[in-house]
Amino acid sequence: MIRVPAEDLMRLGTALFSALGASEDKARFIAETIVEANLTGHDSHGVIYYLTYAERVKEGYIDPRAEPMVERETPTTAVINGCWGFGQLTAMKAMEVAVEKAERSHIAAVTAYRCNHVGRVGYYTAWAARRGFIAMMFLNVGHPIVTVYGGRGRVLGTNPLSIAIPTGGDPFLLDYATSIVAHGKVKQALLEGERIPRGWIRDREGRETDDPAALEAGGWLLPFGGHKGYCLQLVNELLGAALTGSRSGLDPEEGPPSTNGVFAIAVKPEFFIHPKVFEERCRMILDGVRRCEAEAGMRIMIPGEPEWETRRRRLREGIPIPEALRRSLIALAEELGVDEGLMEALMGKPKRGLSVGMDEES
Amino acid sequence: MIRVPAEDLMRLGTALFSALGASEDKARFIAETIVEANLTGHDSHGVIYYLTYAERVKEGYIDPRAEPMVERETPTTAVINGCWGFGQLTAMKAMEVAVEKAERSHIAAVTAYRCNHVGRVGYYTAWAARRGFIAMMFLNVGHPIVTVYGGRGRVLGTNPLSIAIPTGGDPFLLDYATSIVAHGKVKQALLEGERIPRGWIRDREGRETDDPAALEAGGWLLPFGGHKGYCLQLVNELLGAALTGSRSGLDPEEGPPSTNGVFAIAVKPEFFIHPKVFEERCRMILDGVRRCEAEAGMRIMIPGEPEWETRRRRLREGIPIPEALRRSLIALAEELGVDEGLMEALMGKPKRGLSVGMDEES
Repeated sequence: MIRVPAEDLMRLGTALFSALGASEDKARFIAETIVEANLTGHDSHGVIYYLTYAERVKEGYIDPRAEPMVERETPTTAVINGCWGFGQLTAMKAMEVAVEKAERSHIAAVTAYRCNHVGRVGYYTAWAARRGFIAMMFLNVGHPIVTVYGGRGRVLGTNPLSIAIPTGGDPFLLDYATSIVAHGKVKQALLEGERIPRGWIRDREGRETDDPAALEAGGWLLPFGGHKGYCLQLVNELLGAALTGSRSGLDPEEGPPSTNGVFAIAVKPEFFIHPKVFEERCRMILDGVRRCEAEAGMRIMIPGEPEWETRRRRLREGIPIPEALRRSLIALAEELGVDEGLMEALMGKPKRGLSVGMDEES
Repeated sequence: MIRVPAEDLMRLGTALFSALGASEDKARFIAETIVEANLTGHDSHGVIYYLTYAERVKEGYIDPRAEPMVERETPTTAVINGCWGFGQLTAMKAMEVAVEKAERSHIAAVTAYRCNHVGRVGYYTAWAARRGFIAMMFLNVGHPIVTVYGGRGRVLGTNPLSIAIPTGGDPFLLDYATSIVAHGKVKQALLEGERIPRGWIRDREGRETDDPAALEAGGWLLPFGGHKGYCLQLVNELLGAALTGSRSGLDPEEGPPSTNGVFAIAVKPEFFIHPKVFEERCRMILDGVRRCEAEAGMRIMIPGEPEWETRRRRLREGIPIPEALRRSLIALAEELGVDEGLMEALMGKPKRGLSVGMDEES
């Protein structure tokens, strides 16, 4: 396992997506959202997706030149057609438009459809919260891999939810799949040859298992939190698929894989309370929570905190890239004729004083 | 256990709240929201609260004559001051104003403060969904009884969440405490002399227990769904307390008990998609979910469905009232000088062909 500076992975991604046909500024933005997933510790949504998206561009599912467009709008609402470009561009456009409108109208809601996989949802909500907005994103995924509460078989997607709230510094950030874990966490365990905790998935016969391979072999994920998590899984299906006109997990899986239906809300706190007072009060509450007594072996963490801590560490120490992924990225870069200089870090040559070695992340 | 027609309980409640000083139409509305909790199967939020609210009026915490007022507003937002009247009036006002504004502006957000206990939150969101609106309510409770993920001791309130979505008929309804169960469910088990499942609460030493008395004796509830439910518990604290200017579970518990901070959002689907198409698509998705294979001994249910089923049955069969509650209600009615005719059903005399007896509800 080597460690690669985030900046190098961004430059690599920019080169890859440019070579695939995206304009350079779009390519850089897509690479940035993906590397941010690694930086915040969500490797399941990180540069492994350079490979996935390259496949999808080659298969014609992602149009690397497409621009999301605002199809219709009012001062408080908009519908975005993602035109099957990179989902990152569509999700960002949805959140940007919601924030622009909420800036003037206090609150705004935006739907997006024809939207490819958007990656880590917290990128967009945290972006809005850093600008002072309360941001919510309800998504469905048009790829059934999760069962429902009390059910068997693959019924709906991992239907992620994200809510970010400004607190002055790093935002409060809820950002998760409504399944017990994200699909990518199981894929990653498989890639790294690890077992998974029992209770994450069922195999194709509906039995508990700790074998991550059982998921791809016809198994399914479980929704989180019993019937309460299941309710949220359905909220995201109704808002993400029905309200936006996107593919449901229950529809025939035709066209692009893992499409997202996006429903975004932005709220400007200022009308309700002075924004500084709001942020201060949020910090006070979160500090109070942080100070409360922990159970043996536990640490009280604030949602978002593990992400921002990991981000600071990985900015210093680089992003760990497993050997198999490193080889696949090099192969892709070679295939797309990416400048060899960009691959230096990946090839294992120390750069900018960074120690590149086999160290495992603690 | 006798069964009492919903209508009789509403008449009793109207008489009680009128005797306590509320105007008759307000008294009837408060009684209706409370009896709706019983009808939908949530006895923990039902007529047991006739007793609680009567106490709070007598202690001066609920001003039975207070009217919630819109303190300031824009076409998309409002701040409601509940003026420490009945929380039901404040919550209803918040949702009504949100719906009125969303009718014209597509989306609206309303906060409410100085708000007493609002009862079953699903009442207000389901009301909006029956009128064609997507409705969300995020609440905190200014009464710490729930710990946080990984924590010990009472930190925050049960911080309920409700999201209702129109489907043409009975709405889809998410409506729950972000603790594993509502506080009232534990109180009710205590009242009925039952044990509770292990995992709901910890005793004052932090040990697992199935004794509901351990909660009042210094124990605490757990948040639902591990760290994912905990994230929602905090979202409701930040939106319910910080954004609205209401008491946090972390503040000194002065003034009225179990206050609620309310953040309500209403969305009119029409801009995004034709409302009939939306409702039809929601029904199609929910029917697909309903048809999926169930695990042995399970039935796939749609959020809200158990409530609407129980409501239809209890409208026919009456609402079961445990003996201890029956006696307390009679004592309260006598104390407040409520017309004896109204107490007939409670006294066990059969009325309108309803069979009143000791039958246990299945």
